[in-house]
Amino acid sequence: MNRDDKQFLQGVGDRVRERRLALKLTQAELGKRAGLHRTFVGSVERGERNVALLSLRKLARVLRVPPAELLTEPDPGA
Amino acid sequence: MNRDDKQFLQGVGDRVRERRLALKLTQAELGKRAGLHRTFVGSVERGERNVALLSLRKLARVLRVPPAELLTEPDPGA
Repeated sequence: MNRDDKQFLQGVGDRVRERRLALKLTQAELGKRAGLHRTFVGSVERGERNVALLSLRKLARVLRVPPAELLTEPDPGA
Repeated sequence: MNRDDKQFLQGVGDRVRERRLALKLTQAELGKRAGLHRTFVGSVERGERNVALLSLRKLARVLRVPPAELLTEPDPGA
């Protein structure tokens, strides 16, 4: 994983964390509701996890945002 | 994979295909430029692949769209 990829995944992790805290959920609660392990949520938030779309979708559903909103890549044309 | 998940992945596949055709690329050309196998692109477009974010990002970069744009989940609040 290169630095650019790591930065991208960290951006996703930051958005997950931001939404989770806004909903006052712990990592364990988010994991439980999404059907994912607590440590999985932690690794996503630390940008260590190359998340698959269906897991991203499960998180997004609990966080009540469209999955696209958790992806922070700026517009390549911007 | 339930029907809803399959529909979500098919939506992503449709967007990849739409952009690929708009850029007049074959699946082989998209795969080569993205550093992914041609058959991988085909399985994504058929909605058979639970794509990981970094692969989605590679496709998005070649297709010149932000990765978020390839995710078609409608806004849960809409």
